[in-house]
Amino acid sequence: MAPTRSDADRWILYTAPGSCGLAAHIALHEAHADFSVVLLDLAAGQQKGADYLAINPKGRVPALATPQGVLTETPAILAFVARTFARAALAPRDDAFAWARLLEFNSYLASTVHVAHAHKRRGARWADDPAAIEAMRRKVPQTMGDCATRLEAGLSGPWVLGEHYSVADPYLFTLVGWLEGDGVALEPFARLRAHFARVAARPATRRALAESGA
Amino acid sequence: MAPTRSDADRWILYTAPGSCGLAAHIALHEAHADFSVVLLDLAAGQQKGADYLAINPKGRVPALATPQGVLTETPAILAFVARTFARAALAPRDDAFAWARLLEFNSYLASTVHVAHAHKRRGARWADDPAAIEAMRRKVPQTMGDCATRLEAGLSGPWVLGEHYSVADPYLFTLVGWLEGDGVALEPFARLRAHFARVAARPATRRALAESGA
Repeated sequence: MAPTRSDADRWILYTAPGSCGLAAHIALHEAHADFSVVLLDLAAGQQKGADYLAINPKGRVPALATPQGVLTETPAILAFVARTFARAALAPRDDAFAWARLLEFNSYLASTVHVAHAHKRRGARWADDPAAIEAMRRKVPQTMGDCATRLEAGLSGPWVLGEHYSVADPYLFTLVGWLEGDGVALEPFARLRAHFARVAARPATRRALAESGA
Repeated sequence: MAPTRSDADRWILYTAPGSCGLAAHIALHEAHADFSVVLLDLAAGQQKGADYLAINPKGRVPALATPQGVLTETPAILAFVARTFARAALAPRDDAFAWARLLEFNSYLASTVHVAHAHKRRGARWADDPAAIEAMRRKVPQTMGDCATRLEAGLSGPWVLGEHYSVADPYLFTLVGWLEGDGVALEPFARLRAHFARVAARPATRRALAESGA
């Protein structure tokens, strides 16, 4: 981590390889935003270091530093990117219900899917007993498999919202990328696999992956 | 539960006493929306019944049925209510960053605070072993206490966003209302208590509480 604020007008995305920060990273490239990236080493605990806690007291990634302040929580960062770079058309604009569908989808990813995944390595957040933490880890293939089943059933078009790419797509891509590591075989999920391949092929995705060392 | 769709143009909020659906319920009254309420009996498992699963396959509350479809996830419902009833001024409109702060706050409540709370009674979502579920339950006073500490530190004005009430306020009110039951003494949290009292005194809150049998 080498945080710098030398250019106060330039956004800085704090993220980490393999983290959900990839979604915001991709979205910023889709938006053609001018930003720099700071990669944290989560295994080394940089997210809990004083330097980073001064930026994001929650000690988590991602965080997006802007001249107006630091924004956290992936659904909020994605919505902010979409709204700020409206010309990139990364979210529905005039249809309030379609726009709410985007928030609903991203909220589900954050509150249910990401939380299910976190019980694999972050069980200590919710219990102290090592046996309990191990019991949580064991259930992750099932809970993430259930999430994959729901997500598969909800995908009908090429993109999450149908015909138009939105900031929900890099977020889904990021979490689907965790499934195999979580013990979920991807074979039954043809739509999720096709979606993953579509997002993976986009230049913004390839650039974000290259920059985050993935 | 007695779901009805006799008036296709009227919104229906599906919620349950004591659930996070209270936030949307209050927000709809703040917006002076025309809607009806269907209360589910969670203890009786109505949220997992075929009638309700046809409305919300996730088997959770809240769900907001509208002529355009059923919307779930509290942060999405709250944002949709604020946008649809713009005259009620329940969210920042022109300041994109302030608007993102609202989404960030609600996303934190959904993904961290509500999730911490859910480990008290819903531990079976994340582990099968009864001892593990009990270990999760034991940690809830600590995790919810940590959340309360963070929320207290973040409150500076009378409302979550400062001088103006927004849909973040009934959501915070709802989750702060869970703290004592989660084993967190409210005494150290003067700002949260004052905020809770301010929201509790509003007519929309009193009406929602009366209608949800709380």
